[in-house]
Amino acid sequence: MSKGEFDLIRAWTSGRQAPSLLRSNGVVAGIGDDAAVTEWTPGMQMVVTCDTMVEEIHFKTITMRDSDVGFKAMAAAVSDIAAMGAIPKYALISISQPKNAKEQRLQGIYDGLYECADLWNVAVIGGDTTSSLSGISITVTVIGEVENGKALLRSAAQTGDIVFVTGYPGCSSAGLDLLLQKNTPAEQWGGFQPLQIPLVQAHTRPVPQITAGRLLQQLGSCHALNDVSDGIASEAWEIAEASGRGVDLIEDRIPIAAELQAHAYSVRKDPLDFVLYGGEDYLLIGTMPADRALDAQLKFSEAGLSLHVIGYITGDHNGVRMAKSDGLLEAVPKRGYNHFGKE
Amino acid sequence: MSKGEFDLIRAWTSGRQAPSLLRSNGVVAGIGDDAAVTEWTPGMQMVVTCDTMVEEIHFKTITMRDSDVGFKAMAAAVSDIAAMGAIPKYALISISQPKNAKEQRLQGIYDGLYECADLWNVAVIGGDTTSSLSGISITVTVIGEVENGKALLRSAAQTGDIVFVTGYPGCSSAGLDLLLQKNTPAEQWGGFQPLQIPLVQAHTRPVPQITAGRLLQQLGSCHALNDVSDGIASEAWEIAEASGRGVDLIEDRIPIAAELQAHAYSVRKDPLDFVLYGGEDYLLIGTMPADRALDAQLKFSEAGLSLHVIGYITGDHNGVRMAKSDGLLEAVPKRGYNHFGKE
Repeated sequence: MSKGEFDLIRAWTSGRQAPSLLRSNGVVAGIGDDAAVTEWTPGMQMVVTCDTMVEEIHFKTITMRDSDVGFKAMAAAVSDIAAMGAIPKYALISISQPKNAKEQRLQGIYDGLYECADLWNVAVIGGDTTSSLSGISITVTVIGEVENGKALLRSAAQTGDIVFVTGYPGCSSAGLDLLLQKNTPAEQWGGFQPLQIPLVQAHTRPVPQITAGRLLQQLGSCHALNDVSDGIASEAWEIAEASGRGVDLIEDRIPIAAELQAHAYSVRKDPLDFVLYGGEDYLLIGTMPADRALDAQLKFSEAGLSLHVIGYITGDHNGVRMAKSDGLLEAVPKRGYNHFGKE
Repeated sequence: MSKGEFDLIRAWTSGRQAPSLLRSNGVVAGIGDDAAVTEWTPGMQMVVTCDTMVEEIHFKTITMRDSDVGFKAMAAAVSDIAAMGAIPKYALISISQPKNAKEQRLQGIYDGLYECADLWNVAVIGGDTTSSLSGISITVTVIGEVENGKALLRSAAQTGDIVFVTGYPGCSSAGLDLLLQKNTPAEQWGGFQPLQIPLVQAHTRPVPQITAGRLLQQLGSCHALNDVSDGIASEAWEIAEASGRGVDLIEDRIPIAAELQAHAYSVRKDPLDFVLYGGEDYLLIGTMPADRALDAQLKFSEAGLSLHVIGYITGDHNGVRMAKSDGLLEAVPKRGYNHFGKE
């Protein structure tokens, strides 16, 4: 990148966050030195993850506005911290962009990154900016903390646990469907019908479930926890394999948003396909003892959140099955999410 | 990336590091969950940085073997931790590669990444792997720790300090020169003359100065510190601007390696051009009170390291000047490093 570009990036990032946010997160030295320095909180462990989003692989100009790209890159990494029951605190942002990229694109991306960081009290303390040969690529590292020994691992499911999800899965991939159909540059969107807007929103501005993750961590009853980045099927398989248990999902208990129902009907697909194999909902899927579920649902309601029981953990097998409405028990294949239908 | 590729990456990374290394670094949960979890050391602050290397921008197949690419990506990030006087502890590795990339390339890169991580006791605890449209891109995040309040910042230079460098700068860019001249796929190198090998080595396998950084931190006399990623001129400018002081370099005191001297002579360039504007030496440049320099040099000698005094900090100006051999004081322009001569 040229010197001028670096100056622009500095202008978009330096002094961007409130000093009080940096101070309350224990930032000793932020952006501007070889590395950032922060205080640690006694009694807490570090939780850290990183997530990369690549143009044409994870997003296109017809599926996301630049600010959405930034928002979602931050949200995806923050979501991994939520899935540990932890509190996000710091982020580092590395962006590569072609030399001929328009300035506004990068500015929009930084706007989205900071919008999401500010929402979740994440202090941006470092990063890197480089040129790329083609396309924009963003890697976000998020560091958080959790009470000693209290991180919620995906390997902790117990036989007899119920399986829950913290919202309505499948909406993000239905939104992607709509955006690919529309095939219009994202900056010129308009004309979506009321029932379509929440789906587009779910794809472009996913909300990381930090509040839900912290509530689950504080309830003390949650065993395994995962975020839904690759669809319910893939995440349930991860819990099953990591825990050495089976997941039995119950078709009739899986929450289907009315908006997803409507979209699935209009494209003549089974809404369950979106739920099981659509990705990037960034909800949480987890397990807890059956007798603790009602209390958890009440606490979620009180907090304005939802917790849907969608199945059980069993010792009978090591995979994922679905109890269909007709009473049959079917194997759910292990299959990940693929953005644009390319392998 | 396809499922098979993910399995391959898992095979190259899982169980790769000694359990004792992970344990002694306080890793509670490493690769395999949404995020990694680690213990923190009481009395220490966190130090964190990330660094991205992009194919054709930072490396080509004629300038680096795949394992060099991995080694250097890790070394560059570890070097930022060294430049804070800190101890590196954890790394996260995000790699994007084209769908048609050869498996061996990625395997070679992981080999190099782990080779460097093992050398510096860095526990690899997470990362991400995605497809790219073209070229390989690697982002390494390194997290370390330093005694509370003891990080060495680039803004801490004081008037009257000497400026030092922990080795012979300019060798890496001279090595790059040689590799571009040779223009042979790196996996088939050979035929370098004895005096050229250390230069090629400096470019392909830079050694992060963790030992020197820790020694400087423990001496207690070091004020400002920076790593030399963009050439002495650029780094001296960073110290000058961050500290609100001037840096006066002394031409006759700048250490020029015999190998660099020989290469510069053969290509009819001034060796100082490599020193001032060549990059990626990953040495440390810093400042300390003049009366502490001799003691520091003795301690460095005892540890088998070198510390060269190359100039002074002055309150007279806010930039970088060079006292030339002929007695003239010249301004040193602020100019970064550019790998392949492209803007």
